Amino acid sequence: MPLTRVATLLSDARPDETVTAKGWVRTRRDSKNGFSFIELNDGSCMKNLQIVVDADVPGYSDSIKNVTTGASIAVEGTVKESPGKGQRIELHATSLNVLGTADPATFPLQKKGHSFEFLREIAHLRPRSNSFGAVARVRNCISRSIHNFFQTRGFLYLNTPIITTSDCEGAGEMFQVTTLDMAKLAQRQTEIDWKQDFFGKPASLTVSGQLEAETYATSVGDCYTFGPTFRAENSNTTRHLAEFWMVEPEMPFYELPDNMDLAEAFIKTIINDVLAQCPEDMEFFNQRIDKTVLETLENIRTNEFVRLSYTEAVDLLKSCGKKFEYPVEWGIDLQSEHERFLTEEHFKQPVILFDYPRTIKPFYMRCNDDDKTVRAMDVLVPRVGEIIGGSQREERLDVLLARIEECGMNPDDYWWYTDLRRYGTVPHSGFGLGLERAVQLITGMTNIRDVIPFPRTPGHAEF
Amino acid sequence: MPLTRVATLLSDARPDETVTAKGWVRTRRDSKNGFSFIELNDGSCMKNLQIVVDADVPGYSDSIKNVTTGASIAVEGTVKESPGKGQRIELHATSLNVLGTADPATFPLQKKGHSFEFLREIAHLRPRSNSFGAVARVRNCISRSIHNFFQTRGFLYLNTPIITTSDCEGAGEMFQVTTLDMAKLAQRQTEIDWKQDFFGKPASLTVSGQLEAETYATSVGDCYTFGPTFRAENSNTTRHLAEFWMVEPEMPFYELPDNMDLAEAFIKTIINDVLAQCPEDMEFFNQRIDKTVLETLENIRTNEFVRLSYTEAVDLLKSCGKKFEYPVEWGIDLQSEHERFLTEEHFKQPVILFDYPRTIKPFYMRCNDDDKTVRAMDVLVPRVGEIIGGSQREERLDVLLARIEECGMNPDDYWWYTDLRRYGTVPHSGFGLGLERAVQLITGMTNIRDVIPFPRTPGHAEF
Repeated sequence: MPLTRVATLLSDARPDETVTAKGWVRTRRDSKNGFSFIELNDGSCMKNLQIVVDADVPGYSDSIKNVTTGASIAVEGTVKESPGKGQRIELHATSLNVLGTADPATFPLQKKGHSFEFLREIAHLRPRSNSFGAVARVRNCISRSIHNFFQTRGFLYLNTPIITTSDCEGAGEMFQVTTLDMAKLAQRQTEIDWKQDFFGKPASLTVSGQLEAETYATSVGDCYTFGPTFRAENSNTTRHLAEFWMVEPEMPFYELPDNMDLAEAFIKTIINDVLAQCPEDMEFFNQRIDKTVLETLENIRTNEFVRLSYTEAVDLLKSCGKKFEYPVEWGIDLQSEHERFLTEEHFKQPVILFDYPRTIKPFYMRCNDDDKTVRAMDVLVPRVGEIIGGSQREERLDVLLARIEECGMNPDDYWWYTDLRRYGTVPHSGFGLGLERAVQLITGMTNIRDVIPFPRTPGHAEF
Repeated sequence: MPLTRVATLLSDARPDETVTAKGWVRTRRDSKNGFSFIELNDGSCMKNLQIVVDADVPGYSDSIKNVTTGASIAVEGTVKESPGKGQRIELHATSLNVLGTADPATFPLQKKGHSFEFLREIAHLRPRSNSFGAVARVRNCISRSIHNFFQTRGFLYLNTPIITTSDCEGAGEMFQVTTLDMAKLAQRQTEIDWKQDFFGKPASLTVSGQLEAETYATSVGDCYTFGPTFRAENSNTTRHLAEFWMVEPEMPFYELPDNMDLAEAFIKTIINDVLAQCPEDMEFFNQRIDKTVLETLENIRTNEFVRLSYTEAVDLLKSCGKKFEYPVEWGIDLQSEHERFLTEEHFKQPVILFDYPRTIKPFYMRCNDDDKTVRAMDVLVPRVGEIIGGSQREERLDVLLARIEECGMNPDDYWWYTDLRRYGTVPHSGFGLGLERAVQLITGMTNIRDVIPFPRTPGHAEF
């Protein structure tokens, strides 16, 4: 008999239908009247399938003692309308088969709640919990929504390189990649011969696919990357990972306002999709993780995003009368407290800041005529702060070369990037969204280590 | 006026409509009668938009000399039915604006054909050529089809870690990842203190997400990874990359025949999608790259895949009378010549081989009762050979532990992987498809370096 997943059974199964269900036992409760209730979960949804097993079901007496939390079972049975509250149907077993036991003395995921810290140590089992099952489903929904958003608009999905010999930001702390025998290197006193390394020169893990995406934007048109990126920063915060996934669209013929429009539509589409496709999981997050999460998402998806220049924002912050830990002056990089004041207290809705001081932004952003600012934009949302960063790119060869030198970099290292301005240059723009920040925003999960299956942070690369 | 992409104009624009087109000049031809023809491409499709510019169009005399191959232009004009062959419409310019020039003396992509070797050296410009534009579009279509195939079947997309301290195959040549200062390491004569490295121990780039995917398959159910994987093999062949993208679905409650069914449906769906969605590009590949590619795809998508055990295949190869370079004996790893004989000469259709000798397969594959073979499967297709490899996984704890030791590995290193068999183990299966191999199969491109935007191979990590 073909297997039907629990989500489908709960929504579609008709009374008196004969079905097979397989999954993992969440709980078992034995009644005094010679039958047992099993709550079965298979990860297809938050809800469990309630199974009623009479003592006269074949195998009951031998098997039922092994039906413990975490055990895997296969059950054949008949669908019945459920007399209980909160479930439409239940399954009356006609056969019960324990596929794999889970010794209650050692199985770490017993019924009682566990701290997220503890669950991080058993990241291979935590998706069997309600919270992490829900995170997995919502994360999947967000990824699907991201692809659909761009594919329906004719963008090409592009895989930019992970191993690279160039550094997008000209600065980032990067992981090195090598095939040299490091232990041997350390023992011999010698200069490194990079020619012996796999790529013939020092290589590292990418911090962004943007520069390479620009080559495709200026040839095949609208495109986007969606892949892993890396930061070797020694940051032990709830918002930083050494390895995270980033979406980076890049569009020819887009100027900054077009870029803002796309970013706003993008965020709103993702939120709308998750609310429509994962209502049960979102209800869980709102009840159990963060009671304001649905309200925050409603705010973002229904409000137009305020557009405010950096200079206007600084004026506003200086004159608002609020005392900040970090004083505000034109030229500073805005802190989280400033961004949150703007979105949560002043405007009470999402804000796109633009035209930042060139001194605090990378070389590739387009210079404004004021000689002080660049066409950068940051999308700020309540509770999370910056969720998207982007810019119009500098498409003028002479200005770009001057900026590369101003930033202390060598134009020769960027020969191919500057070629895009030498041959048929066009205005173009793009932005980046960190997938895990989006999952945090949408689920309300506070620690970024809990929204990626196997987090990598300083000292941690287990599993 | 909103920008319309060339693909949309060519299919949808109505005569007398006023439109704006932007893109890159492929060619310009000046007529003696005071007007010019421009072939404009914007990467949205293979075909160019033909633009007619009369000498009396504003800006003509100043601009037209800069309308050279590779230059970027913006044209406003009126759509007209085209009197020429091979195009439904053309654009009669009312204004012409050169956005970026491309000096004909230095622009490397002139009209004449270029070797793929040469184009690899200008990987930042090659997507402006017909072949690489088509590869980009087909590669995107394949990626979209992969996501759609799994999403419509309720699989969850899962991001397994890129940086890892475990090695799936127990053997693969891996890239090391470090933040230690290698130049300094080399100069001091000392033992390495791994505690000082970012993750506190040696780390490397993943060769497969399978083991981690199994943790999600046995909790949230059907899932798949789709991300970059790495091999530090010093292979300079047309089929190997140091960095490539792999799709790895993993399904609980699937035994090997279910796994075969899914793999067959998967390949057929991808091929059907590309044929339906990229007919123009596929026509190009069939005419210009490999005249058998459509025929091969037709064979794969319309035939049932033959299912043959390794033992049967060996018997067949030994008795077929054909002389192979590598002699066939039970126990050998089949070579490309053997696989191609089976699919191209004997069966003349795709073949799934299964139940391989355990000595040539990894530790995680399920052992058969014959004590000699494991539940492995390889999907072989004409002209390309192996396109998918997979297996039913060993779900029995004692057998798995014995196999880990038999393979000379330490079970302690796999504590979390073996935990999946300790707690609620279930039969499960999965397979892997290399994206680039699929792009090679479908486009007929012979060198794998030409089906990924920026190939990484020994000595090469430019761009």
